[in-house]
Amino acid sequence: MKNQKKFILEESRIPTHWYNIQADMKNKPLPPLNPETKQPMTAEELSRVFAAECSRQELDTQNRWIDIPEEVMEKYRYYRSTPLVRAYALEKALDTPAHIYFKNESVNPLGSHKINSALPQCYYCKQEGTTNVTTETGAGQWGAALSYAAKVFGLEAAVYQVKITMQQKPYRSSIMRTFGAAVTGSPSMSTRAGKNILTLDPTHPGSLGTAISEAVELATITPGCKYALGSVLSHVTLHQTIIGLEAEKQMEMAGEYPDIVIACFGGGSNFGGIAFPFMRHNINDGRNTEFIAAEPASCPKLTRGVFRYDFGDEAGYTPLLPMFTLGHGFKPANIHAGGLRYHGAGTIVSQLIKDKMMHGTDIPQLESFDAGILFARTEGIIPAPESCHAIAATIREAKKCREEGKRKTILFNLSGHGLIDMPSYDRYIDGDLQNYTISDEEIIRNTEGLYKA
Amino acid sequence: MKNQKKFILEESRIPTHWYNIQADMKNKPLPPLNPETKQPMTAEELSRVFAAECSRQELDTQNRWIDIPEEVMEKYRYYRSTPLVRAYALEKALDTPAHIYFKNESVNPLGSHKINSALPQCYYCKQEGTTNVTTETGAGQWGAALSYAAKVFGLEAAVYQVKITMQQKPYRSSIMRTFGAAVTGSPSMSTRAGKNILTLDPTHPGSLGTAISEAVELATITPGCKYALGSVLSHVTLHQTIIGLEAEKQMEMAGEYPDIVIACFGGGSNFGGIAFPFMRHNINDGRNTEFIAAEPASCPKLTRGVFRYDFGDEAGYTPLLPMFTLGHGFKPANIHAGGLRYHGAGTIVSQLIKDKMMHGTDIPQLESFDAGILFARTEGIIPAPESCHAIAATIREAKKCREEGKRKTILFNLSGHGLIDMPSYDRYIDGDLQNYTISDEEIIRNTEGLYKA
Repeated sequence: MKNQKKFILEESRIPTHWYNIQADMKNKPLPPLNPETKQPMTAEELSRVFAAECSRQELDTQNRWIDIPEEVMEKYRYYRSTPLVRAYALEKALDTPAHIYFKNESVNPLGSHKINSALPQCYYCKQEGTTNVTTETGAGQWGAALSYAAKVFGLEAAVYQVKITMQQKPYRSSIMRTFGAAVTGSPSMSTRAGKNILTLDPTHPGSLGTAISEAVELATITPGCKYALGSVLSHVTLHQTIIGLEAEKQMEMAGEYPDIVIACFGGGSNFGGIAFPFMRHNINDGRNTEFIAAEPASCPKLTRGVFRYDFGDEAGYTPLLPMFTLGHGFKPANIHAGGLRYHGAGTIVSQLIKDKMMHGTDIPQLESFDAGILFARTEGIIPAPESCHAIAATIREAKKCREEGKRKTILFNLSGHGLIDMPSYDRYIDGDLQNYTISDEEIIRNTEGLYKA
Repeated sequence: MKNQKKFILEESRIPTHWYNIQADMKNKPLPPLNPETKQPMTAEELSRVFAAECSRQELDTQNRWIDIPEEVMEKYRYYRSTPLVRAYALEKALDTPAHIYFKNESVNPLGSHKINSALPQCYYCKQEGTTNVTTETGAGQWGAALSYAAKVFGLEAAVYQVKITMQQKPYRSSIMRTFGAAVTGSPSMSTRAGKNILTLDPTHPGSLGTAISEAVELATITPGCKYALGSVLSHVTLHQTIIGLEAEKQMEMAGEYPDIVIACFGGGSNFGGIAFPFMRHNINDGRNTEFIAAEPASCPKLTRGVFRYDFGDEAGYTPLLPMFTLGHGFKPANIHAGGLRYHGAGTIVSQLIKDKMMHGTDIPQLESFDAGILFARTEGIIPAPESCHAIAATIREAKKCREEGKRKTILFNLSGHGLIDMPSYDRYIDGDLQNYTISDEEIIRNTEGLYKA
C-alpha cells in the first residue's frame, strides 16, 4: 500500500505478555524502603496497600515476560491494538525529512493510555477478594479509566481528584460519576492527610502528591479496599508496555525502526510503556535508539531534580522510592498538563537516567500548546495538554533533522486526546497562559534533608 | 478468532465509491422546488449556494456508484475503516440472545461521523475555486468536523452554532476556534434572517433551522463563499454511505448479516449512511432487513410529521424540499441531543418512509440517557446524546428478542462520543432532565399551509 498512513494489528497478533525491563537492566533499580526501618520493602508489605499480584510485579527483577491474564486480554482485544499512524501532514507542515509516527492511545475507552493498567489492577483486586478500590487522579484521565475498569470487574471506586484540575476540567469528574465512582477534590477534609495539608495552607490547589496521600490513607483504613496507582510504580509501567510491544510490530509493518522514541513524562508509565520494548534492543541487540522524556519546564525532575530516596506522596505515607525528585513537598505551578504535575520519577526511569540510557527534555507551557495546535490542525486530533509536551519535543527533533538534512524516524506516544481540556486551549488562544519556571534555590530548599540513595 | 470483538478493514479494502441509493429506488424522491416558481431546481441553481459537484450529486438518480476523489480517499485512509464492534458486555447486561454490533464512528477525528462529508465538501469547494465555507451546527459535531476539513483543504470557515447548544456545550465552540474557525451563536444580529428572528422573539434559543438560514444568507452575499450542510441533503447522505459499505464487509468478517439496522435520526445522513448500503440488498437481492430510525419524542417528524414541501430552514431561504416535517417554524424543546433538533427529514428518507422501506421510532429524553449510561458502563464509551437514541432503540429490540426468544442480529451506528456533552450527563444524573412531547394541535398549527407534495 503506497503511503500507508495507519497500521493496525490483527487481533491474533496483539501481544499476550507484558515486558519487564527490570529483568534486562544491568543495574537494577534500588529497592523501595520502609520509611521507619529504612529496610527494603517486601511484596507482602506492599500488598497491605496494593493488590498482591501488583506488589509481586513491582519487585520482580527476574522474569522478562509477564503473562497477561486471559480476562484482561479479553478486555484489551476490545480496543487494542491502537493505530500506529504516520503523521504525513505534520511532516509536511514542518517541511522535515524526518518520518514521524505516533501511537494513537487517544482512541482508547476514556481517551488515554490509562485504561491499559486500570484493567489489570482492577482484575487482580477482584481476584484477590477486594471489593473497593481507591486512587488519585490529576487531569482525570487515570480516574476516568479506573472508574470504568472498576465497573467492568464489579468493584466500587473512590477517586481523589487534584482540586485545581477538578476546577479547570470539570467534565472529567462528570465522566467518573457517569461510571458510578465517588469523586472528592484533594486536598479534602475527608482524610487526616488532607486536613493537615489544609491546616497549613487552606488554599492549597492540590497535586498528585496530596491526592495520593488521601487515597493511600483511605485504602489503609478501609477494610476490603486497595489502592491503585496510575503511574510512577514499576508494575504500572509494566502494564503499559503493551503500547511499545504493539508499536514494535507495527513499525515493522511500516518497514521502519525508530531512531528516536519520545513520550511525555509525569510519573513515567506512558513513557516506559512505549520506550522499554524498544530499549530492550538497545540493551540486548546493539540498537542505538535515543529515548527522550518530555517534561514540563515548571516541573523538571528529570533535567534538574536530584536522585534521592523520597516519598511518592505529599504526606509521607508511601514507601521511600529511589527517584529523581524535586522533593515531595514541591508545589508545581498550575500548568494545564495536570498529569505532569508530579514531583518525582519512577524508580526504573530514575536508574535508566543515571545509566544514561535515556534523557529528559523540558518544555515550556506555551511551546507545548503551540505544538498541540499545529498537531490538531494537521492531524485532526486535539491532543491532551500532557501529550502536547511529547509533540513539542518531536517537533524540536524534526526541525533539527531539517536543519541537519537528516532523515530520522521518530516515534512518539499520543497518550490521550484533549477534548476534555478545551478550557485550557481557550485560555491559550486568548493569550491568558504563561510559562513557569523554578529557581535552583527552590529545588535545593525542597530536596535538602532527603534520604541519600 | 474465538469471540472476536472488533473488525477492522485492511487499508486496501476501504471502499473507493459511495453508494447512491437514488439509482436503485423504484420511486425516486420528488425534486426540490424553487420556492418562487415551484419548478424543480436544477443543479446549476443549487450551485449558487452549494459546491457544483455536490449540487450534481444531489440530483443524481442515475449513477449507483460515485467515485470518491483520490484526495478524499487519502484523508479517509487516515482514520478509516472505523471499527465494527460486537457489544458482548451490553448483550450480557441485557441478558439477550440478540447479537449486537455497533459501528464505532466516535473514534474519527473530531469524534463523530460528520468528518466523512466535511472532507469531500471542502475538497470540492477548493477544487472549484472557493475560498470560504460557511455552515450551521447544532451540538457542534458538524461544525467541528467542517472547521478541521476546511483547514485541511486551505479554506476559511465561518460557523453559525445553535445558541442553546453553544451554552449547553461550550467546549465545541472551543474546538472550532482551535481549528481557526469563526463561530457565531444563532440567531445572531449578524444577518438579516437572524435579526428578523430576534425581533419576533429576542429569547429564541436557536435551532438548526435558524442557523441554516444565517449560513445560507452569508454564503449568498459573500463572494467566494459556499455553504456546506451537515445532514438532510442527499449528497451528504451519499458521502456517509462509506459507513455502511465498510460495515457490510465487516459483518461478513464476523460471519453475520443484520436483521435490524438502527441509527439515530436528525436530518438523516448518519442513518442513511449506515442503512442504505444494506437497504440495496432489500431492494435488489430479496433481503428482508428492518431499518429503524430513532428520533427524539420531542421532535417526531418521522412518526408524527406530515409529508409536505417545506423549507429546510426557519427563514425560508432554501429550496422547497419534499419531506416529512413538523413545519419549518417548529421550535423543538431544548433537549440535549442538539443534533436531532431539526424539523424535517431528508428527501430520500421521506420517500422511503412513504414506501414502507423503513420506519421511525420515538425515544423520550430520559430513556435515551438511561440507555447511554448502560452503554458507557458496559462498553466503556460515553455516547453522544444523539447516539443514545440509537442505543435506546437497540435495547428495545434486544429486550424484544429476549421476550420472544429470538436471536436477531442488530447493527447500530454509534455516530459519536459524548465527551463534550458531559454537562448533559451531569444534569441527567442529578435528576434535572425531563421528557418533552408535542401535541397534535401544535403539529397541525405548524404544518398547515405548507405546499402539498
